[in-house]
Amino acid sequence: MSGVDLIGILAGIFTTFAIIPQIYKAIKTGKVEDISPVFLSVLIAGVGLWTVYGVFLKDYPIIITNGVSVVLNSTMLIIYLNSNHRTNL
Amino acid sequence: MSGVDLIGILAGIFTTFAIIPQIYKAIKTGKVEDISPVFLSVLIAGVGLWTVYGVFLKDYPIIITNGVSVVLNSTMLIIYLNSNHRTNL
Repeated sequence: MSGVDLIGILAGIFTTFAIIPQIYKAIKTGKVEDISPVFLSVLIAGVGLWTVYGVFLKDYPIIITNGVSVVLNSTMLIIYLNSNHRTNL
Repeated sequence: MSGVDLIGILAGIFTTFAIIPQIYKAIKTGKVEDISPVFLSVLIAGVGLWTVYGVFLKDYPIIITNGVSVVLNSTMLIIYLNSNHRTNL
């Protein structure tokens, strides 16, 4: 594995799992009011499109990293929508 | 331009600019307490690594989309750090 491959793998891991600290905070504090559901929806649409893009190219790293991102970011959106502190911005 | 290219461009636009509604909400409400600075920091590190990855590959779409993401997500982190409502989670 080259240095460039390593940078790509680390980049994929960081961007895929970045939302986990936000999920942890939302569960721990029970507060999500300041989070933007529009942000989460646009992000989910984006990583969803990247997953489709990867399927067309049969590129498994793109499919896997973005597929996991769809699941994790959707989890955060569900937490937001299930919270009764939300606002609609 | 093929259909697959179009999907890739749309995916890049969505994921690059997703954070803008969150920036808008933070500025409009002045409240950022529920946002995780750890999430923002990990995301910035990830898109930063993708930018470096693109430089090595001389892949301009990867450089541009992720470079813009570094700027936008850093803007959100600065808004968070400048707010006196923040918590350190």
